[in-house]
Amino acid sequence: MSVTAPLGFRAAGVAAGIKSGGARDLALVVNDGPSRAAAGVFTANRVQAAPVLWSRQVLAGGRVRAVVLNSGGANACTGPEGFQDTHATAEKAAAVLADSAGEIAVCSTGLIGERLPMDALLSGVETAATQLSRDGGLAAADAIRTTDTVSKISFRRASGYMVGGMAKGAGMLAPALATMLCVITTDADLTSEELDATLRRATATTFDRLDADGCMSTNDTVLLLASGASGVRPDLAEFEQKVTEVCADLARQLLVDAEGATKAIAIEVVGAASEDDAVKVGRTVSRSNLLKCAIHGEDPNWGRVLAAVGTTDAVFEPDRLNVAINGIWICRAGAVGDDRDKVDMRPRDVTITIDLSAGPYTATVHTTDLTAAYVHENSAYSS
Amino acid sequence: MSVTAPLGFRAAGVAAGIKSGGARDLALVVNDGPSRAAAGVFTANRVQAAPVLWSRQVLAGGRVRAVVLNSGGANACTGPEGFQDTHATAEKAAAVLADSAGEIAVCSTGLIGERLPMDALLSGVETAATQLSRDGGLAAADAIRTTDTVSKISFRRASGYMVGGMAKGAGMLAPALATMLCVITTDADLTSEELDATLRRATATTFDRLDADGCMSTNDTVLLLASGASGVRPDLAEFEQKVTEVCADLARQLLVDAEGATKAIAIEVVGAASEDDAVKVGRTVSRSNLLKCAIHGEDPNWGRVLAAVGTTDAVFEPDRLNVAINGIWICRAGAVGDDRDKVDMRPRDVTITIDLSAGPYTATVHTTDLTAAYVHENSAYSS
Repeated sequence: MSVTAPLGFRAAGVAAGIKSGGARDLALVVNDGPSRAAAGVFTANRVQAAPVLWSRQVLAGGRVRAVVLNSGGANACTGPEGFQDTHATAEKAAAVLADSAGEIAVCSTGLIGERLPMDALLSGVETAATQLSRDGGLAAADAIRTTDTVSKISFRRASGYMVGGMAKGAGMLAPALATMLCVITTDADLTSEELDATLRRATATTFDRLDADGCMSTNDTVLLLASGASGVRPDLAEFEQKVTEVCADLARQLLVDAEGATKAIAIEVVGAASEDDAVKVGRTVSRSNLLKCAIHGEDPNWGRVLAAVGTTDAVFEPDRLNVAINGIWICRAGAVGDDRDKVDMRPRDVTITIDLSAGPYTATVHTTDLTAAYVHENSAYSS
Repeated sequence: MSVTAPLGFRAAGVAAGIKSGGARDLALVVNDGPSRAAAGVFTANRVQAAPVLWSRQVLAGGRVRAVVLNSGGANACTGPEGFQDTHATAEKAAAVLADSAGEIAVCSTGLIGERLPMDALLSGVETAATQLSRDGGLAAADAIRTTDTVSKISFRRASGYMVGGMAKGAGMLAPALATMLCVITTDADLTSEELDATLRRATATTFDRLDADGCMSTNDTVLLLASGASGVRPDLAEFEQKVTEVCADLARQLLVDAEGATKAIAIEVVGAASEDDAVKVGRTVSRSNLLKCAIHGEDPNWGRVLAAVGTTDAVFEPDRLNVAINGIWICRAGAVGDDRDKVDMRPRDVTITIDLSAGPYTATVHTTDLTAAYVHENSAYSS
């Protein structure tokens, strides 16, 4: 179902020859309207790939007719020539769709610092345009995979309209290949301002709280496109809930498919003085290599949790910290709590609950364990 | 030579039975004066071990008669009882030395969250006191090892006085066992204020720029003790230089001995608008797991350098960044530079030079590669 679940969208995924080996590597998603309102969120990295620089400008206009996505190359750190390549990609899609390049978004993923094979890419856009269909969502989701072992798709049915989405991400979790890309579609009728507000809130509590190795891509992009083809003006609260569910579902799929990971770790911070504090503590703990190694070894090492919490400036007193792992409060009041042998570390899902005893706010950050397989995968990529 | 190289110091290292297996695990370093001026720097972690809380109070007085150091247990996150254990350790050392507990510093290293075996520790202090000697520096350096494969010692001769030191640290670099501990001694005659200023500047450019896994210990402690036994009032600039050399030498030994590391990586930031910017960029790049994996795989992956630089708020323009690895400028003006095949990645020492093109300031941060051996060592520690 993917991005073609909602009415008004067609998609295709083709093998353009950007990747060696003949796998699908180019996707095209087209919004046939009647509306083409759109919003996007992009990487906060200051080193931004050419397609991010381009698509930011497109999205500033609030309208997107189509998105071209390629795997096999990130087109990042490629200088003015790389930007011209992205521009040419948008111009080609505009030509085949008889539309304006200013409403064509472009996303790329793959190795940083290499130019894209433009002949292959541009003829791929032509081929994809001939294969656009209402069934093309799965092929498109397949074409954006890099080291992803499976396609990531999701959809939700709402009151008279649909929300659909696709994502790729070995990235963000363990970005051997830079980047998390995501396209979400809906046939509800909304303004670009409404889409923007919805998307920012939905990503803030889903993709933004997925932090497997602390490495931020140069290419991360999440787009939300509305065709209005259902004719339904949605209740905004319901719409935000559905978009958030699709984002959370895709984020979960990214986490489960993260390279080398054997554990999905939820770091649940409670008792925080603010939501910012809760997120900050969760993110800091999620970036502790020592803790991630311990969880990989099925060691409920709460000392490493406290050592990480202690590096933040969140409001807390060290002797009021409590930590539970998989429901057993093995640290109470900053010291030894219940018997660590009671903690069952065998399940794939591990929940670490950190009670800051400082207020009513909570947040959960998701990460994975650190494994020898992660090291192997990321040691042997471009060479 | 270690901490007993300067006049006025005796030391001992004994097997007190804190560690299982009979290895040395308790060190005592005594300053016989005539001066006992001292200074200390401690972990910035807000979760601080009992010996850190204790020793901070001792050092606030600017005088230290002796330091008790133990491996085999960090005495961190052990609550009020743990603090009483540290207090009892200082009282025991004071009793055997017929001195005041308020001038006895205590350092501990090992697993977080477990009480120390106090009977063994206190009788170890008694035994160590009987073995104190002018030759005891090596035994003391041996006794504070955890997963360190070798003892770390250093000394420098200056104009009429000496500076000596010992350190341990699987910690800070790859702290499977929490902590970097370091004791530096001198027989020069200085005030505690002079020692404090010297130590802060010396550690700021040495130990503070060693960042292997971004994990900050609850126990890190660096002490500087002056006996004045040489009778020499040193030139302060020369003294700072010698103390900095000892710190740099010990820091280098820590780096080379880091658990699981196969590469010593120097991240040299040049062209920064401020020293703070240079340190910030160096530290951020040193914490990129992706880059550390790439270096392990001998892959000169400059894209991962740029992706890390881009997450900082340092002053720079993305299209003016230049990156060299082992002297080859493989990224120029934010894009592809010289041929990456020219980079020789085989040596153990790897230098990554990042030119921000934003000003005249520089800083170098040292780190190691990320290896499967690191994961193994830190997955299998406490369980």
